[in-house]
Amino acid sequence: MGADPRFFPTRGPIALAAIAQAAGVSIDGDGDRLFDGVAPLTDAGPQDVAFLEGRRMLAALRETRAGAVFVAAGAVKDVPEGCIALVTEAPQLAYARVASLFHPLPAPVPGIHPTATVAPDAVIGEGTEIGPYAVIGAGAQIGAGCIIGALASVGAGCVLGAGSVLRSHASMEHCIAGAGVVLHQGARVGNEGFGFVTTKTGQHVTVPQIGRVILGDGVEIGTNSCVDRGAGGDTVLGPGTRLDNLVQIGHNVKTGRGCVIVAQVGIAGSVELGDYVVVAAQAGLAGHIKVGPQARIGAQAGVMNDVPPATDVVGSPAWPARETLRAFARLRQLAATKRDGTSGETP
Amino acid sequence: MGADPRFFPTRGPIALAAIAQAAGVSIDGDGDRLFDGVAPLTDAGPQDVAFLEGRRMLAALRETRAGAVFVAAGAVKDVPEGCIALVTEAPQLAYARVASLFHPLPAPVPGIHPTATVAPDAVIGEGTEIGPYAVIGAGAQIGAGCIIGALASVGAGCVLGAGSVLRSHASMEHCIAGAGVVLHQGARVGNEGFGFVTTKTGQHVTVPQIGRVILGDGVEIGTNSCVDRGAGGDTVLGPGTRLDNLVQIGHNVKTGRGCVIVAQVGIAGSVELGDYVVVAAQAGLAGHIKVGPQARIGAQAGVMNDVPPATDVVGSPAWPARETLRAFARLRQLAATKRDGTSGETP
Amino acid sequence: MGADPRFFPTRGPIALAAIAQAAGVSIDGDGDRLFDGVAPLTDAGPQDVAFLEGRRMLAALRETRAGAVFVAAGAVKDVPEGCIALVTEAPQLAYARVASLFHPLPAPVPGIHPTATVAPDAVIGEGTEIGPYAVIGAGAQIGAGCIIGALASVGAGCVLGAGSVLRSHASMEHCIAGAGVVLHQGARVGNEGFGFVTTKTGQHVTVPQIGRVILGDGVEIGTNSCVDRGAGGDTVLGPGTRLDNLVQIGHNVKTGRGCVIVAQVGIAGSVELGDYVVVAAQAGLAGHIKVGPQARIGAQAGVMNDVPPATDVVGSPAWPARETLRAFARLRQLAATKRDGTSGETP
Repeated sequence: MGADPRFFPTRGPIALAAIAQAAGVSIDGDGDRLFDGVAPLTDAGPQDVAFLEGRRMLAALRETRAGAVFVAAGAVKDVPEGCIALVTEAPQLAYARVASLFHPLPAPVPGIHPTATVAPDAVIGEGTEIGPYAVIGAGAQIGAGCIIGALASVGAGCVLGAGSVLRSHASMEHCIAGAGVVLHQGARVGNEGFGFVTTKTGQHVTVPQIGRVILGDGVEIGTNSCVDRGAGGDTVLGPGTRLDNLVQIGHNVKTGRGCVIVAQVGIAGSVELGDYVVVAAQAGLAGHIKVGPQARIGAQAGVMNDVPPATDVVGSPAWPARETLRAFARLRQLAATKRDGTSGETP
Repeated sequence: MGADPRFFPTRGPIALAAIAQAAGVSIDGDGDRLFDGVAPLTDAGPQDVAFLEGRRMLAALRETRAGAVFVAAGAVKDVPEGCIALVTEAPQLAYARVASLFHPLPAPVPGIHPTATVAPDAVIGEGTEIGPYAVIGAGAQIGAGCIIGALASVGAGCVLGAGSVLRSHASMEHCIAGAGVVLHQGARVGNEGFGFVTTKTGQHVTVPQIGRVILGDGVEIGTNSCVDRGAGGDTVLGPGTRLDNLVQIGHNVKTGRGCVIVAQVGIAGSVELGDYVVVAAQAGLAGHIKVGPQARIGAQAGVMNDVPPATDVVGSPAWPARETLRAFARLRQLAATKRDGTSGETP
Repeated sequence: MGADPRFFPTRGPIALAAIAQAAGVSIDGDGDRLFDGVAPLTDAGPQDVAFLEGRRMLAALRETRAGAVFVAAGAVKDVPEGCIALVTEAPQLAYARVASLFHPLPAPVPGIHPTATVAPDAVIGEGTEIGPYAVIGAGAQIGAGCIIGALASVGAGCVLGAGSVLRSHASMEHCIAGAGVVLHQGARVGNEGFGFVTTKTGQHVTVPQIGRVILGDGVEIGTNSCVDRGAGGDTVLGPGTRLDNLVQIGHNVKTGRGCVIVAQVGIAGSVELGDYVVVAAQAGLAGHIKVGPQARIGAQAGVMNDVPPATDVVGSPAWPARETLRAFARLRQLAATKRDGTSGETP
């Protein structure tokens, strides 16, 4: 059973030949066979296309009723009789292409909802959709083919590139964004960062935060995530960088391209990430550190120091991964021994 | 002194007999005595009803000026002279019943605010209240006696059961919800999960997220919390499950009934929780793990592996509680010794 | 190069004499020299004023092209030839004063946007600005010179003191707030806390949350942060206390004045913080503990017990800082040794 048509209208049925072409795989035989949609291995029927990436769902593959499955070469032997094996190096990517064929993202419905408030000098690109109660500020420039969702807001002077999306309740201000940028529901970009000075008498005096946020092409900001503008100079997220939900990005953070920041991560001010850095869920990065390209930071890590390129760190405080795991194992042994070295309870 | 009438209008005064009946306790004597409201032990006056659960506030009980107090049998001796002891096994539950008597949740004011935008084919149940700037999408079905707060949104095709509430700024989409569901302010349900594939050249390609969110009866989603829809197949929260604030629920998570997820917890995709699992504040659960019914996960835990039923785990990485606490104690001892085993500074 | 005038209009150029006066520094010579704005050391040109606080940016100071720089006395020797050294004990504070001179916070534009919904009995102070789609509830009292941003909401009965700001999408309810209070974008104040009782059959029964939130003068609540109202009695944030983004404050928390709560901190119900407590990013505080004035809680700490005044704690569970750091160092040593005490791999 495929996607609920109430939420995901389908362009199907689609012939196997077109499916194979979209996925970049070759087929022999029945290119005219029709498929209705995509589905997970466990739910799929003979009119659905599924996929297997890795080994976790191997048992599900062996029992799937899917009509066709994207698999890597090594899993072909596990494809059930009667199910078409579509062989590819990258099954999930192939699936993504085909899912988009059946369920393309809704195109903008060009026009400005009568309840939207658009400043007279704002510039709205051709084919852009502006939803109910959206607010577009003075001098804002919104590119072609964008979607501004219900109750979302674009602040004065902002620039948003073509094909970008603000989902409902999202807000951007003090921001220059490229093309294909997505702010998910409730995302907040361009807010005033946590910048103040404390006097000798304990009074906190705000330091005006007069920088901006620069979002590269294809940047995505997750649901209810926050990206503070620069204190002086900008906060910059490189092209293709993606933030998951409930992430905090402090003022003047700079990332390279294609970084992946998972849910509930906090990155303090002025941190610099190189290209393709991955920061796993709930990790925290202290201010001003530099993380080299392709470094990977473990879930819940607390990173206090620079991280070299292509290095994995875990733990709080974060150490290189192998060392931390050895320390935890050692601690576990110690917990099982008494102070005099004899064994205690079995762990 | 009871609740501020500016915010919490009272149905009082109410007679002790009615109070006792609502609470399921027995009284002797003055059932006609009138009470004005409820209050904490430290603030209560002779016209207020208070409660003591556990021992933490025992000193406050001994000095309370409350007119009546719900207590367990063992605390009756600590109830001051002149204060009526209302004996019950569950004092806080009794208090909750009586607080609701004095301050019932505001009933919906039936009707659609003139500024709300409701799609022509949306179905709005009898007695439902729709507030200012609320947005109800095409084909949405909202049950009877619901409240949709100001600036909240219900996406196209959604179903919301009777007696449900969306507080201000909340949003739901791609969602089927049962009866008595509550989305608190800024809660975001049905968002696109963090699903993409990275090509060999580092480009992130979104995998269409074509599942839904299914919320059982009585589910509550806390303020600014996020529940992502399924990638394929659904994200499912079982009846009575409650999420606190700033929680992240990833795509395809499934919970049993009555789970309790405290503030700022993150649960990665495809995790399965059994019935009545408790996850304490700021814990993180790695993807695809299974947590058995009635397991309890400690605050700030980092759970990487399956958790058996009725098991307590703490720490990051999480181990069974007793083992972790022993490890920390051992580590503390070691910190107090020098490398040669002699004692260092007094910890 | 100074701030982007598209977002930060400038009151410049401003003469050095006025700059010095605002900053409380003395100058000799050219008080008539004009400056255009402020900028970071690395970006500043001859018409900009910059600052150096501490030593981190010392190299940038030596190479700056800024026309004038606020520095402490010890850094005067590092100020380049031709750049005016403005000597002060507190360079960043001086910079803040001057940045505000060039880029004052936008004053309210008095008036109520035609799309705003204001209850007939709400009281709006003189000179207050109410933005598009803002919702002001019955009997709310908003002071003079406030700004209520687009799509923000003030609930029935609330009181907001003079010169306060709700940025876009923020919400307050069940709240009494002083003067100069700021709720940043998407901040949520006065929500129902996570209060319920679980019956023997596993049903969660909500305990009515009939307290309020009291915000002292100058309190700031960060983007998408949450402050729950009291269960009975109030949640109180003392004057000048500042919350960063994505912070969770549970019901009945009480803070003294000037506390600093950094991003993604979670403070459970009924915690009490003294004056000037600092809680670093992602820390968690267990319910009902007391933290003495001027204590400092480390990033990612897990605080289970009371903290004495002026004490630093780190770690999870949190111990006094020196002890924790020694424990981690010891653990690191152990990780580098084998079980028999001989050295393993070099850490």
